[in-house]
Amino acid sequence: AKLTLVICHVMQESLLSSASGYSNYRGILNWCVVMLVLSNARLFLENLIKYGILVDPIQVVSLFLKDPYSWPAACLMIVSNVFVIATFYTERRLAVGKISESTGLMLHGLNLTAILVFPVVMVLCVTSLTPVGGVLSLGIYTILFMKMYSYKDTNRWCREIRLAKVKRLTRSNSCPSVTRLSGKTHVSYPGNLTYRDIYYFVFIPTLCYELNFPRSPRIRKRFLLRRLFEMVRGHWMVPTVQNSMKPFQVQAVPNHLIWLIFFYWFFHSSMNFVAELMQFGDREFYRDWWNSETVTYFWSNWNIPVHKWCLRHFYKPMLRKGVNKFMAQTAVFLASAFFHEYLVSIPLRMFRLWAFSGMMAQVPLAWFVGRFLNGNYGNAAVWMSLIIGQPVAVLMYVHDYYVIHYGTSE
Amino acid sequence: AKLTLVICHVMQESLLSSASGYSNYRGILNWCVVMLVLSNARLFLENLIKYGILVDPIQVVSLFLKDPYSWPAACLMIVSNVFVIATFYTERRLAVGKISESTGLMLHGLNLTAILVFPVVMVLCVTSLTPVGGVLSLGIYTILFMKMYSYKDTNRWCREIRLAKVKRLTRSNSCPSVTRLSGKTHVSYPGNLTYRDIYYFVFIPTLCYELNFPRSPRIRKRFLLRRLFEMVRGHWMVPTVQNSMKPFQVQAVPNHLIWLIFFYWFFHSSMNFVAELMQFGDREFYRDWWNSETVTYFWSNWNIPVHKWCLRHFYKPMLRKGVNKFMAQTAVFLASAFFHEYLVSIPLRMFRLWAFSGMMAQVPLAWFVGRFLNGNYGNAAVWMSLIIGQPVAVLMYVHDYYVIHYGTSE
Repeated sequence: AKLTLVICHVMQESLLSSASGYSNYRGILNWCVVMLVLSNARLFLENLIKYGILVDPIQVVSLFLKDPYSWPAACLMIVSNVFVIATFYTERRLAVGKISESTGLMLHGLNLTAILVFPVVMVLCVTSLTPVGGVLSLGIYTILFMKMYSYKDTNRWCREIRLAKVKRLTRSNSCPSVTRLSGKTHVSYPGNLTYRDIYYFVFIPTLCYELNFPRSPRIRKRFLLRRLFEMVRGHWMVPTVQNSMKPFQVQAVPNHLIWLIFFYWFFHSSMNFVAELMQFGDREFYRDWWNSETVTYFWSNWNIPVHKWCLRHFYKPMLRKGVNKFMAQTAVFLASAFFHEYLVSIPLRMFRLWAFSGMMAQVPLAWFVGRFLNGNYGNAAVWMSLIIGQPVAVLMYVHDYYVIHYGTSE
Repeated sequence: AKLTLVICHVMQESLLSSASGYSNYRGILNWCVVMLVLSNARLFLENLIKYGILVDPIQVVSLFLKDPYSWPAACLMIVSNVFVIATFYTERRLAVGKISESTGLMLHGLNLTAILVFPVVMVLCVTSLTPVGGVLSLGIYTILFMKMYSYKDTNRWCREIRLAKVKRLTRSNSCPSVTRLSGKTHVSYPGNLTYRDIYYFVFIPTLCYELNFPRSPRIRKRFLLRRLFEMVRGHWMVPTVQNSMKPFQVQAVPNHLIWLIFFYWFFHSSMNFVAELMQFGDREFYRDWWNSETVTYFWSNWNIPVHKWCLRHFYKPMLRKGVNKFMAQTAVFLASAFFHEYLVSIPLRMFRLWAFSGMMAQVPLAWFVGRFLNGNYGNAAVWMSLIIGQPVAVLMYVHDYYVIHYGTSE
C-alpha cells in the first residue's frame, strides 16, 4: 500500500460567520421550545394537576361570556349566515342578468356595510358579551367581510371575461375552448354559484375566492391528530394569558412570548388543522417573517391570507385605477390601521386610537430601518420593534380599561 | 388585452411543517440574542456605569489570582516553552537519524508525561493560584500535550513515507516527484523542522499538525475588529458568572446560557480572531451541533479541534492496530472523561469523579436517544440533556467546594 499523508485542514469559514452563507438553525427553534417548556414547567404541572389534561370547558367559556348560559357570540355566528346567503343570491341574479351590474354593486355595498356595522351594534348593546367574546365576534365578521368582498370581486371578473369572450366569438365565430384539467372536474363560471361552493369558501382558511382551489388528495390522519394535539395544548396557556391581563404585571417579554405562541397556535396548528379537514391544498399561511430584515418584509409575510387579500382586492385594483404606488401603500396601511382599531376599540368600548397609531407608526419605522440598518442588524431591529412595540400598545389599552372599570391602575 | 383570472392559490405545505423541508431560521438566532440582551439589559447598563466600556483589569485578574502581583499562571505559561523545545530537538535528531525511533518514542513519552504531570504538581503546591487560574493553566497544558502528540505523530508518518519512497527509489531507480503548488511554497519533510513552523503551530487554533496549513490570503481588518469587539463584550458577563458561582443560587437555565455564551465567545469570536491574526485558513471550529438529533452527533460536532485530534491520533490508529470499533469508541470516551476530570478535580483540589461519571453517562444516554427518539424529538432530547445535565455536574462540584472551604452550603 502506498503511504500518503491525509490532508487534515481545508480553507473554510465558520458556520456562524455571515460569509459562510449557512442558515440552518432548525435546532435553535427546538431550543426555544425546550426553554419555553422548561421555564413554564411549574405552570404546566400546576395546570395538569388542577384541570387535568383537558381544560374545564365552563372555565374556558367564562372567558368569552359573563353568563355561560346565554350565548350572544354563538347567536351572532348563526346570524352571519344571513349575509352569506344575501351575497349568494345577489351573485345568482347578476349571473343570469336579472339585475344590472350597478344594482348588484349597490346590493353588495349595502350587505358589506351591514356585515361591519351589525356586530358593532350588537357588541355595544349586548352587555353579557365579554371583551374576549367581542373580539372573537368582530374578528369573525371581519373575516366574513373580506371573504364576501373577494367573492363578489372574483365573480365580477368572471362576468367581464365571459363578456369579452362573447364579443370575440361574435367577431371571429370560433368555438370557446373548454379547459379541463387531467381527471379533475374544472368548474367555470357560472357553474361555481352553488351553496356547496360558497360554504366551502367560508370554512377554508383563506380570504381570496377562487373557482378552483387546489385540493389535497386525502386527509392525513396523523397530521390531523398532531395539529389537534397542538391546538389543545395551546389551551394550557389560558391561565398565563389571564395572569398577564393584570395591569402593570404585564411585562414586554412574556407578552411577546404569548404573541409567538398565539402565532404558532393560530397560523400553524389551527389553520393547518382546518385546511387538512377541508382538503384545502394551499398551506402558505405565513412565510419566513422571522428572517425579516425590513419592517415591510415582516408585514407582508407574517399573515399571508390578509396580505394576499390586500394585494388582490385593494392594492392592485387601486394601481389599475391609476393611483401611484406610495399612495396605494399608505391606503393599505390606513385600512389595516382602521381594522386593528375596529377589532380592539369596540369590544373594549374605548376609543383611544392606540392601535391605529401603532399601525401608522410602522410607516416611519419602516423608512428608518430600511434606510439605516440591514442584514442581521435589520432583523434585530424588527425583533426589537415586535418585542417592545406590541406590549406597549397592549399595555395602553389594558391600563385605560382598568382605570375605567375599576377606577384604579393597581 | 386578453382578460384572464390570475391563479391565487397553489398546492404547498406550511414552512413549519417538517414536510416542507424548510430550515432557514437565522432570524430565530437573532431573536435569541435580542432576548438575551433585553433580559440582561439592567446588568449591561449597571456594568457600563460601574466599569465603563472596558472592565477594570485588576478586577478581571483577581479572578485568576489571589495576589494579583505574583503571577504563577503566567510563569507556568513561560515554562511551557521548555516542553515545546524538547519536542522540537527530539524531532530534529530523529530526522537526521542521530537517535533511533525507539529512543525517540521514549523521549517523547517522557516529555508528554511531564507536560501533564508538571502543571498538576504546580497547581497543587502553589497556593496563590485560584481555581480559575488553575483551570486556565491546566487547559493550556492539555492543549500543548495534544499539539505535541500530534507533532510527533505527523513527523513519524513523514519519516515512514520517506523510508517507503527510498525503498521504491532503490527498486525502480526513478526520480522523486517534487510537488509544488501554484505559486505557493510547499514545505516537505524535513524542511518543516524549524522554530518558526513549530511556534506557528503552537499559536494557531487547531490541535492537528500538518506540514502545509491552508493560509488565508490577507488579514481582514473589519473581521478582526468585529471579533475583538465580541471578545471584549464577553467580559461583561464576568459578574454574571461570579453571581452564578454562589451555591444553590445556581439554576439550570442561566448556567446553560453561560455555557452558550462561552461557546460563542471561545469557539467563534476568540478562535476566529486568532486565526485571522495568524492567517490560518481552516475556520471549522464547530459544526451544526445545534441541529444534533443524536448524542453522538453532538459530541463529534461541537468541538471540532478536539474531535479531529481524537479521530486522527487516537481512534484511527487504534483501528489500524486491530481494535474493534465499539472498543475504540469507548476508549475515546474514557480518555475524554479522564481529561474532563483532570481539568476540574485538580484546580478545585477535590477528587469526586462527577465530571468523569458525567462523560461516561453519555454512552447509555446516546444509546437511549438513538434507540427511541429521532428528528426534532431527538434534537429536543439532546437540548434537554445539555440544559439539565451540565448544570447538575457543575452544581455537584460547587456544592462540595463550598462545603469544604466554608463548611456550609449556604
